[in-house]
Amino acid sequence: MQMQFEDIDRIAEGAAFLGTGGGGDPYMGSLLCKQAFRRYGAPTIVDVQDLDDNANVYVAAMMGAPSVMLEKLMDVRELDDAVSALERYTGKPADVILAAEMGGSNSMLPVALAAERGLPLVDGDGMGRAFPELQMVTYHVMGVNASPMAMANEHGEVVLIDARDSQQTEMKGRQMVMQMGGRAAISLYPMSGADAKRAVIGGTLTLARDIGRALLEGRAEGNAFERLLRFLRGTEYYRHAEVLFEGKITDLQRNVTGGFTQGLCEITGSNDSDTRMSIQFQNENLVAYKNGKLAAVVPDLICILDAETAAPITSESLKFGQRVKVIGASVPPIMRSQAALDVFGPQAFGLKEPFVPLETLISPSGTDIQNVAND
Amino acid sequence: MQMQFEDIDRIAEGAAFLGTGGGGDPYMGSLLCKQAFRRYGAPTIVDVQDLDDNANVYVAAMMGAPSVMLEKLMDVRELDDAVSALERYTGKPADVILAAEMGGSNSMLPVALAAERGLPLVDGDGMGRAFPELQMVTYHVMGVNASPMAMANEHGEVVLIDARDSQQTEMKGRQMVMQMGGRAAISLYPMSGADAKRAVIGGTLTLARDIGRALLEGRAEGNAFERLLRFLRGTEYYRHAEVLFEGKITDLQRNVTGGFTQGLCEITGSNDSDTRMSIQFQNENLVAYKNGKLAAVVPDLICILDAETAAPITSESLKFGQRVKVIGASVPPIMRSQAALDVFGPQAFGLKEPFVPLETLISPSGTDIQNVAND
Repeated sequence: MQMQFEDIDRIAEGAAFLGTGGGGDPYMGSLLCKQAFRRYGAPTIVDVQDLDDNANVYVAAMMGAPSVMLEKLMDVRELDDAVSALERYTGKPADVILAAEMGGSNSMLPVALAAERGLPLVDGDGMGRAFPELQMVTYHVMGVNASPMAMANEHGEVVLIDARDSQQTEMKGRQMVMQMGGRAAISLYPMSGADAKRAVIGGTLTLARDIGRALLEGRAEGNAFERLLRFLRGTEYYRHAEVLFEGKITDLQRNVTGGFTQGLCEITGSNDSDTRMSIQFQNENLVAYKNGKLAAVVPDLICILDAETAAPITSESLKFGQRVKVIGASVPPIMRSQAALDVFGPQAFGLKEPFVPLETLISPSGTDIQNVAND
Repeated sequence: MQMQFEDIDRIAEGAAFLGTGGGGDPYMGSLLCKQAFRRYGAPTIVDVQDLDDNANVYVAAMMGAPSVMLEKLMDVRELDDAVSALERYTGKPADVILAAEMGGSNSMLPVALAAERGLPLVDGDGMGRAFPELQMVTYHVMGVNASPMAMANEHGEVVLIDARDSQQTEMKGRQMVMQMGGRAAISLYPMSGADAKRAVIGGTLTLARDIGRALLEGRAEGNAFERLLRFLRGTEYYRHAEVLFEGKITDLQRNVTGGFTQGLCEITGSNDSDTRMSIQFQNENLVAYKNGKLAAVVPDLICILDAETAAPITSESLKFGQRVKVIGASVPPIMRSQAALDVFGPQAFGLKEPFVPLETLISPSGTDIQNVAND
């Protein structure tokens, strides 16, 4: 399937939603995509199950603090440098490009790279959302090593890390990304087509596109939230979806620490100023409490959107006084296995909460009876 | 010229002297050399001026805090991993091995690697001594980039750094070496034979061997200091050589900070307890003050030896109460050029002293009249 030029804005919009605050602003990525499409044409999207078992699948992404990425724009050349360095190291040319996450800029950058390289792009990723650390993908959960990983920056500098496991790759890479200027283009998790078939969450690129379409078309029609929820509820992955809260941002703590944009956002209810939602983030939104009670927690999606336009808001763009709606949504079952929760469940982020599926959290209030009945 | 088995102990002894406290204890390196010689035979030593202009010259060394190296022994396999990773990255097989420094373990490790690989070893290095940072070599002074550099550790992990200059390579590598366990085998400054001819200080391997022979034979005859000084004064490089102080270590501050063994050693005079020498080190001894007056400063050599056996003492082996002699010696002219002093002169170490050649510092007292007259 050939990608369309109009898909770029849709994917950017959908990826901003799935980014749950992290992954970097997809707008920058969408500009790179448009430039690449105009120069090299649109890439072909392939179903992961159609890959040749021996295909060399290369993951391309960006690593670092989204706050830094806003100030230092990424060039496709840097991504290309990272992939080239990894090709040189492994001795295997890239046959197909794969995204690490379908959230934020990291959903757009592989599209731009695939266009520039004239390579097909897998319809899928390793989480169907965004996460802050390299090992937080189904690739790692399914036994693929993040190493060897190549990193490249705007000075043409390259660093290659061949660590014993994905966790070590993350630790060494995180240290290095600060030395490389706060953010770097990376290529990692080199895998075979056979590995990709069992480790990739398929279909998430087209899902992001269709989420984006629902948002964009709904915005034009003035019913974006309705369109969004209706679409999500019709999908296999995100079918438990609900507006968790509506209000105004009344407190915001945000720091760039250890290579992450970390902090806390507090929202005061629109209709009842005694109700409050507090959301903790580390690049991505990790956990939401409503009046001190758990409302949603990773790996389920917690998305903060502009209350009027339904535009998804990234962690570094949250502003005091913003009127927002918070949407919670379920994630694919592969993301909720015990092995997966060990890697990107609440404990992996140092939260004390156990994982509770969103559908369980919202069902007692009766707001989601219909979906629960469908289970 | 074929190396001899007996040369190992001599080079180890000479390199301990030239290490001026740093570079790691050459004893460990000498054991690796003996093992490699027994298994693979001794390597051939080649004059740098005899290299083919197109030869691929690979530098092998160890990076990290000597204090850590004492606890985590190095294996030749790690050096081999580093060189192999660099070969894979550059696409050029190593034709000849070169040392970075002729001080401490870093003088021995390339010998062991050359033996194991069956490759010739250059008679020379980039400083005729030891220094704590990667860019502190004549290779960098003469315009060769330390990058690409490969790093390897005992877990089989490899990191490749391709930075824009030697200073950036040092910064990125220093950060990474802590993540890799405090020390790592490295291969860096890949250069052509033509580059080596202008950037290498030739003859330092055989000089280290002959310094070692003077020390070992002199020790057996009971006149090690006499033999040592006589030999040094007969060389082109180290001809200004003098005992700067004799006494007992009465104060010692030592920390492993930022990947270095750093500190201060104070020595109280044997004959006159009112006289004091204080020596500051960062792996290597950097500056010596006698009663508060500058006595010697980098890049000139400041060596602390056991007062009885004339055994060179490394910074991490200095002990309270030790009776020692401090020897100062000049370095090759290429090490004292302004370009060289910019890289490893006193200011490069944050010292406020300007560089003053040892022969100038010792001549007013009349102790070195003879050598000065020969200038």
